[in-house]
Amino acid sequence: MPTQFDPPSGTRDFLAADVEQREEAFAVIRSVFTRYGFEPLQTPAFERLSVLLGKYGEDGDKLVFKILRRGEHEASGEADLALRYDLTVPLARVAAAYGSQLPTPYKRYAIAPVWRADRPGQGRFREFVQCDLDTLGSPSVLADAEALCAQHDALAALGLPEFSIQLNSRRVLSGLLEAFAVPEALGAGVLITLDKLDKLAPGDVISELEGRGLAQDAAAKLVAVMTAPDAVDQVRAALKTREQGAAGLDEVDSVLSLVALQIPPGRIAFTPRLVRGLSYYTGPIWEVVAPGVPGSIGSGGRYDHLIKQLGGPDTPATGSSLGVERILPLLPRSGAAERGRLDVAVTVMAEEFARQAFDMAATARAAGLRSSIYLGESAKLGRQLRWASVQGARWCLIYGSAEDEAGTVTVRDMHSGEQTAVPVGELGDYLTRAAG
Amino acid sequence: MPTQFDPPSGTRDFLAADVEQREEAFAVIRSVFTRYGFEPLQTPAFERLSVLLGKYGEDGDKLVFKILRRGEHEASGEADLALRYDLTVPLARVAAAYGSQLPTPYKRYAIAPVWRADRPGQGRFREFVQCDLDTLGSPSVLADAEALCAQHDALAALGLPEFSIQLNSRRVLSGLLEAFAVPEALGAGVLITLDKLDKLAPGDVISELEGRGLAQDAAAKLVAVMTAPDAVDQVRAALKTREQGAAGLDEVDSVLSLVALQIPPGRIAFTPRLVRGLSYYTGPIWEVVAPGVPGSIGSGGRYDHLIKQLGGPDTPATGSSLGVERILPLLPRSGAAERGRLDVAVTVMAEEFARQAFDMAATARAAGLRSSIYLGESAKLGRQLRWASVQGARWCLIYGSAEDEAGTVTVRDMHSGEQTAVPVGELGDYLTRAAG
Repeated sequence: MPTQFDPPSGTRDFLAADVEQREEAFAVIRSVFTRYGFEPLQTPAFERLSVLLGKYGEDGDKLVFKILRRGEHEASGEADLALRYDLTVPLARVAAAYGSQLPTPYKRYAIAPVWRADRPGQGRFREFVQCDLDTLGSPSVLADAEALCAQHDALAALGLPEFSIQLNSRRVLSGLLEAFAVPEALGAGVLITLDKLDKLAPGDVISELEGRGLAQDAAAKLVAVMTAPDAVDQVRAALKTREQGAAGLDEVDSVLSLVALQIPPGRIAFTPRLVRGLSYYTGPIWEVVAPGVPGSIGSGGRYDHLIKQLGGPDTPATGSSLGVERILPLLPRSGAAERGRLDVAVTVMAEEFARQAFDMAATARAAGLRSSIYLGESAKLGRQLRWASVQGARWCLIYGSAEDEAGTVTVRDMHSGEQTAVPVGELGDYLTRAAG
Repeated sequence: MPTQFDPPSGTRDFLAADVEQREEAFAVIRSVFTRYGFEPLQTPAFERLSVLLGKYGEDGDKLVFKILRRGEHEASGEADLALRYDLTVPLARVAAAYGSQLPTPYKRYAIAPVWRADRPGQGRFREFVQCDLDTLGSPSVLADAEALCAQHDALAALGLPEFSIQLNSRRVLSGLLEAFAVPEALGAGVLITLDKLDKLAPGDVISELEGRGLAQDAAAKLVAVMTAPDAVDQVRAALKTREQGAAGLDEVDSVLSLVALQIPPGRIAFTPRLVRGLSYYTGPIWEVVAPGVPGSIGSGGRYDHLIKQLGGPDTPATGSSLGVERILPLLPRSGAAERGRLDVAVTVMAEEFARQAFDMAATARAAGLRSSIYLGESAKLGRQLRWASVQGARWCLIYGSAEDEAGTVTVRDMHSGEQTAVPVGELGDYLTRAAG
């Protein structure tokens, strides 16, 4: 039952362990992207409404969070700003705004939240992080292969145990439509239906194709080829003599050859029936799938006209997007979660020793350890040791009258319970050695 | 002149060098806070409107960015959500929502953007990062001193060349009002006026105090004490026999004693005329100032009733906030900015050698270096070397027909121009050694 203290519907609070796991994963991804020469870009959470509207189709427009005008204009009930819906429209705006200030090609990544007023549900959020990398300004298949490899390496670096990549090309699909004499006007619809071969029975796909106006014979042949065990060979044979089709096969083969050193052969495969719903792709396309996860955990492809359509300059572009919110639950739980909050817990046995406790915590921090003094109200050692234990501390420092007289501090190993008297002046060295 | 491609008024795009500088600074701060045992918290960008409204006063409410209801409700022109205005109201909500799941005390930090529909201006933004740490659940002055030290250490770790800390206590101020027989009803207003001693001439402050209803004599004496060269001594003398005042002096002295090891004595001083505008403080208060920067670059204090007022549980609290947006421009420019985008630039001398170029870039990355292949359309070496130079690469790899025949790759040192033929199989070792 949601309460007044829950975060808004479809959003989440992340407490320490979750923040740490997420940030660790993002750091791994950033490090891989950086090594590929992609550079970071950060844009504001909101854009002018006019920049966003009309870019995502009618359904998309409805899912945009709009921000009310302010001051005297608030009463109008009108919006002038909106939360970003993806990271691509801001990229198009930046490409238009900064033009020659950006390197050529412009290889950028962005890992940032986006907001969509979707109906919240299992694993579907209204605030979620997208993780995109894109190369603007290069028409080369090398850029496609690079975007794919960087995405692959990021998944590998995250420690995702099992995943595979389906590769295709929009030109292969165009060639197929031509080879099966699909009338041009039906092309886009036919592809949308073929994309359902993963979910629907072949018979149902054939019916839907007929419903779209395709002849029964052509529909049946098309589905038979796409679902055959040797679909790849049949498609290759059908396409190699056609211009679009042969160019598509070349693209696919170039990508496969370029990535061969980095992506193990079993992990990537030419998949003629991969369509990708979005019509803006113009070259190679791919999806990353993982066993047990419906849909994809990553995708990408070339989209040479989209940046212009989104209001940016007319530039070739390619990129990939990692579904980080779907990937995070698949990752092995990181060590950070079990590491405890503190390395060194420092008791405060009496007010008169607070200063010493404060200084000893500083000494521990100077040795690179996480350390805090006890901030509670009890002067009892047992109570303070319990606190140290809940914090997951490895050592607890005790300094009372006896220690004060002896000029030592008692270092308690919280795992073994063993206690050692350490001269106060040697505490830093002692902890450094113990932690080493 | 703003164009249609600029980010919305009061917001900024951060290109690579800026992102890197900002993220580096945030990482330094996070690392210091973590070493103190503060843990991260992330909350959604927006909250329910009812959670935010009425928490910031009438003026604050006007500056909240409100989000329009969606779907059929959009036409109502009403808002149901709003972008967070600070990090404290979300903290109060989280403390209420997760209660016993949180450690006691709950020491958390948050470094995240907030949004305020302020009039944008020089150094004033509508989207800016706040950097807060707070301890909920401890009434101890140890917690105050810890929040202050963590803030100090973060500023020191950032490499801020010069700054100092003004320390006071709300109880010292209460004691002063009592000592100077300021009627209780006038107390809050008198403090607001005293806070202007930094900006106004003493005479103007006296007039304003009189305007508030204070007797001329009392106003003149109060201002004389506060602006005297030995203000500290005069205040100590006036307060030590009064209950509130003496308790305030004790607080100040406790903090000064606790932080003595970590904060050099010249860097922190008891400053009786420090008021801090916000009325919710209940104990020690402080501000961090830097030469040449008007206002403060950080602040903090104890606020024992605020979390409850903001809708959270009734818990003592203390914390500090770093003005990171004001601090960032003061920092020495980091090395990252001059480091260049790539370590190893890889030429593609002909399409037939693209695969080798791709593999060599992967080899460089496996050696921990940032590497990318040339993605442009020119096959000319001069053009590609220019690209490598613009990327700031330390080495450029050249692999053409001659190298292909010899089984070597030419490694060009981009600083000296020196070229070395390296057997392809030894490239990784060579680069590792060269980078070492």
